[in-house]
Amino acid sequence: MAQSVLLTGAAGRVGTAILDGLVDEREYEWRLLDRDPPTEDQPGEFVVADITDEEAVREAMDGVDAVIHLAGDPRKTAPWESVLPNNIDGTRVVYEAAVDAGVEKVAFASSNHAVGAYETDERTPEMYREDDQFRLDGNELPRPGNLYGVSKAAGEVLGRYYHDEHGLSVVCVRIGNLTEGHPPVDYERGQAMWLSYRDCAHLFDRCIQADYDYEIVYGISDNDRKYYSIERAREVLGYEPQDNSAGHD
Amino acid sequence: MAQSVLLTGAAGRVGTAILDGLVDEREYEWRLLDRDPPTEDQPGEFVVADITDEEAVREAMDGVDAVIHLAGDPRKTAPWESVLPNNIDGTRVVYEAAVDAGVEKVAFASSNHAVGAYETDERTPEMYREDDQFRLDGNELPRPGNLYGVSKAAGEVLGRYYHDEHGLSVVCVRIGNLTEGHPPVDYERGQAMWLSYRDCAHLFDRCIQADYDYEIVYGISDNDRKYYSIERAREVLGYEPQDNSAGHD
Repeated sequence: MAQSVLLTGAAGRVGTAILDGLVDEREYEWRLLDRDPPTEDQPGEFVVADITDEEAVREAMDGVDAVIHLAGDPRKTAPWESVLPNNIDGTRVVYEAAVDAGVEKVAFASSNHAVGAYETDERTPEMYREDDQFRLDGNELPRPGNLYGVSKAAGEVLGRYYHDEHGLSVVCVRIGNLTEGHPPVDYERGQAMWLSYRDCAHLFDRCIQADYDYEIVYGISDNDRKYYSIERAREVLGYEPQDNSAGHD
Repeated sequence: MAQSVLLTGAAGRVGTAILDGLVDEREYEWRLLDRDPPTEDQPGEFVVADITDEEAVREAMDGVDAVIHLAGDPRKTAPWESVLPNNIDGTRVVYEAAVDAGVEKVAFASSNHAVGAYETDERTPEMYREDDQFRLDGNELPRPGNLYGVSKAAGEVLGRYYHDEHGLSVVCVRIGNLTEGHPPVDYERGQAMWLSYRDCAHLFDRCIQADYDYEIVYGISDNDRKYYSIERAREVLGYEPQDNSAGHD
């Protein structure tokens, strides 16, 4: 039987990359959730609901095997008044509904902003360069550079709790710089954290397929420049990125 | 001039231990804040306000050098509906008001519950014993065993952000098991994380006096049994605990 996958925040950029890459490739039964009604035909049932609407989220979770949770305020400048309900409370709503519905796995869209403050004046721009050895691997404590990043770090901790106490498999993907084309050659930071659309789709596909307990992984392509390790994503999820921001001049 | 210290949640157990230990010993100018009006004479100005009341907290912060932030729902069984506003948002209110008022230091009462899920079936009860070498030292990722612990971990991340982005000195104290008398001899876990009242007062006194950037330390006495390292508290804060839960039979 086809796996049933709930994708929250389906209409956003990450959701678009995932659906573009997987709809024709995989036989998932998609259930899509977004705050705004769709403007085009959709590859599955579409639920229009706010992620903080517990009843609607619980209903959308019925019969679901895996959740890709992207919904939330995506702006790095988002104010606390928005990230507190939408990103922190909304993520708690998703985990809780998933546990109660017997869902097996939740892939949570965390962000590079959860660790943005590691990019100190002392480390930059060297850390963006190919010969630099500085790496974050997911075992480090969060260092958010904004309140959006704080909200993502909080979502990771919530996932840890719902895994430890309720047995939910949770993978937090600290998504880099997702753009359809590769970043400009002179944008060193962007190149170092580039995630291509097809690598993004593949990575979340692995989050649906692989077996794991609780993981924090980085979501970037196999860039020559990097300060995020993708070893854990390779090992645990079987992530095999095809793109590299280098070699595009 | 005497240092001015704002103590939030002043009427709680931790606040009581701090005031009992320091009021006669130190020349601090105390400003005390609690949700409930005091029933006895107080050693300083007393502000009755909810910690989520931004305006009241801002007013209480005026002219303050250091903050000891204890206010919040202290129940380990506290529901999300309470810890989200009181512990997470309330702590954000405190950091933000502190930054805006030019406060130098905030000591945040975190909790052993931020890492409670490290106490797995495989590790317990061995980890509570004197000959066991398992130690948490503050560099590990949070593993909360309840939503109260999630809220404390979120408060730690908020502190990291307000330090990195706004220069506030923040120390998060993962308080163990604070009781006036030592725990029963047969309560191994309680003995391992015991914090005596006088060690608690001394530890928060060091949080007012010492210089630091951002720190996570454990707040326990110098117990023979322990699975929390107090090395960082010794090194950075000059913490010198006098009590030990052992030897009390």
